[in-house]
Amino acid sequence: MDSMVNFTPGPSQLYFTVADHLKKGFKDGIPSLSHRSKQFESIFARTTNGLRELLDIPSDYSIVFTGSATEIWERIIQNLVEEKSHHFVNGAFSKRFFEIAQQLNKKSTKTEVPAGSSFADSISIPEGTELIALTHNETSTGVSLSLPFIHSFKENNQECLVAVDAVSSLPYPSFDFTKIDSVFFSIQKGFGLPAGLGVWIFNRRCLDKANQLLAKGISIGSFHTLPLLHANAQKNQTPETPNVLAIYLLGKVVSDFLVRGATTMRQETQYKAALLYKALEDHTAIKPFVADKHNRSKTVIVAETGDRTEELTSFLQTRGFFPGEGYGSSKKNQLRFANFPAHSKEQFESLVDALSTFK
Amino acid sequence: MDSMVNFTPGPSQLYFTVADHLKKGFKDGIPSLSHRSKQFESIFARTTNGLRELLDIPSDYSIVFTGSATEIWERIIQNLVEEKSHHFVNGAFSKRFFEIAQQLNKKSTKTEVPAGSSFADSISIPEGTELIALTHNETSTGVSLSLPFIHSFKENNQECLVAVDAVSSLPYPSFDFTKIDSVFFSIQKGFGLPAGLGVWIFNRRCLDKANQLLAKGISIGSFHTLPLLHANAQKNQTPETPNVLAIYLLGKVVSDFLVRGATTMRQETQYKAALLYKALEDHTAIKPFVADKHNRSKTVIVAETGDRTEELTSFLQTRGFFPGEGYGSSKKNQLRFANFPAHSKEQFESLVDALSTFK
Repeated sequence: MDSMVNFTPGPSQLYFTVADHLKKGFKDGIPSLSHRSKQFESIFARTTNGLRELLDIPSDYSIVFTGSATEIWERIIQNLVEEKSHHFVNGAFSKRFFEIAQQLNKKSTKTEVPAGSSFADSISIPEGTELIALTHNETSTGVSLSLPFIHSFKENNQECLVAVDAVSSLPYPSFDFTKIDSVFFSIQKGFGLPAGLGVWIFNRRCLDKANQLLAKGISIGSFHTLPLLHANAQKNQTPETPNVLAIYLLGKVVSDFLVRGATTMRQETQYKAALLYKALEDHTAIKPFVADKHNRSKTVIVAETGDRTEELTSFLQTRGFFPGEGYGSSKKNQLRFANFPAHSKEQFESLVDALSTFK
Repeated sequence: MDSMVNFTPGPSQLYFTVADHLKKGFKDGIPSLSHRSKQFESIFARTTNGLRELLDIPSDYSIVFTGSATEIWERIIQNLVEEKSHHFVNGAFSKRFFEIAQQLNKKSTKTEVPAGSSFADSISIPEGTELIALTHNETSTGVSLSLPFIHSFKENNQECLVAVDAVSSLPYPSFDFTKIDSVFFSIQKGFGLPAGLGVWIFNRRCLDKANQLLAKGISIGSFHTLPLLHANAQKNQTPETPNVLAIYLLGKVVSDFLVRGATTMRQETQYKAALLYKALEDHTAIKPFVADKHNRSKTVIVAETGDRTEELTSFLQTRGFFPGEGYGSSKKNQLRFANFPAHSKEQFESLVDALSTFK
């Protein structure tokens, strides 16, 4: 290994092309570029068109930018919920989405299961729910919801909007957008970029809902309301001066991903995940935290490391592998390994080799 | 001139040290750095301590980060106003601050004067006003409010909070913080950095007010509430994954500014402004837009260029000077020149020389 590999789930390892794109961007004056210039509009268009192609986003869905995915949690509740959202909670991040609804004075409800587990197949949604909030990949525990589960709600809850937090899984999952109204992520995870930008994808139904709330005299925020974000995006613009450099870099990395091919990247993600889960299962001292194979995330792999956590961390770090700490109260007995496009097959193979020599 | 100079008021010319800081930051792994690490905490501390020293911010004022100054407009209204703010409006940006209060369903009031002018010395504030909102430097028109004017409100309105938008003037003005409760700016203007970060400075009275609203059951937002931003800042932390790289770069540029010295930088700003205003006054074809000398901004200098606008723009651009367009409806007959620390005396001297040869 030439240098260290950062396996923290986010901010994570930079995609290997980022430094060169940044050098080129500086040479081309991107950091001083006006967000009201034609040149910015073409950068905005290239980035959103690239994402549309990579993630197979239908043409009638809008793509807009915020400061973070945390901000999108707030904007979703503000713009899409008058009274009641229903949240699927199985870890710290899905819980925080629910708590944000409470902080915005909504009468939201939740279905909660313990950390490390997922949900029963058939769950009925409370009467009057306007928005169903699902976290595709619970970054704190390494539990991923299956796509059939996520897609199952639309049929029986046609009056609800379905919003999916895909912060630490995209660009891996292939969502069926006919069964989802909104998806969002941030760029410092699967896209291998410096933090500071959230990406929010939504359809016409979301826009209509926000406009309905506005028509009732309910405040849905100011500069980052869905109608204003949408109207600006139609002109390849943003309401405020955005993180221009991040939008530029995201466009460049998405182009790189398109050259590599979404299918290839997904297959590589599966290969790397299989490799690491196998190594954890075969190991004598550590094991996968998520017991049920069907619930195991492909993009954030959590190892139950018990009282060997500190020892294993040092062992890996001296070999150039920097694992992510366990989340919150699991800091002392778990390690997390991000499996993003920035993490190569060779790096995973070397990681697994190293793990096999840790007894 | 070796290369072009960007005089747009923002995003503006990069400070000359930024590219080197970025190179070093990449080498040190800043883009992949966890915002929950000790290393991030020390970056946060260095940046805020540097700002405290540079801007002479009292120790009982907090310094926190948002995605943009536009976001701070919203957060100020959300966190500090139950019903009524009073706004001083003399251009597009001060007007937008007022409109954001309306979008958040407040019963706000305003004192409005035409673009290019300032306010009468003695203005009484409507009964029941909780927050007085002042824009130190109206970026759209190049009108600056005097510091005595800004500082005058506290004495007669002790129950009000005073918030100052200093987006396109800091680090130039020397505010008296005993007469201001909150100040904010963004980094792509006077600090010469890529866009994507707002900086919000506030005192204990602001925090108390936000807590009072919370106690009344009023929602003040979720992740970027003042109490949560403050509690995190106490630990040199942020509520969400922030723009780590921008916080790092800001700290580096602030260190550079401290070496140069705030007094020197202020004197240079005055020198460069005097030079350009003199050139505009002496010119036969163009003139300063702001008629009253006392209202003229030192940091955003607006020229009335009439039907020569397009011709002058080309003339300057071929010489490597890129002026900012006039704002909104003044696009066709005005040009704006930012005068920030990134713009050197030599660049201003060359600009003025060029202007003198334009007949």
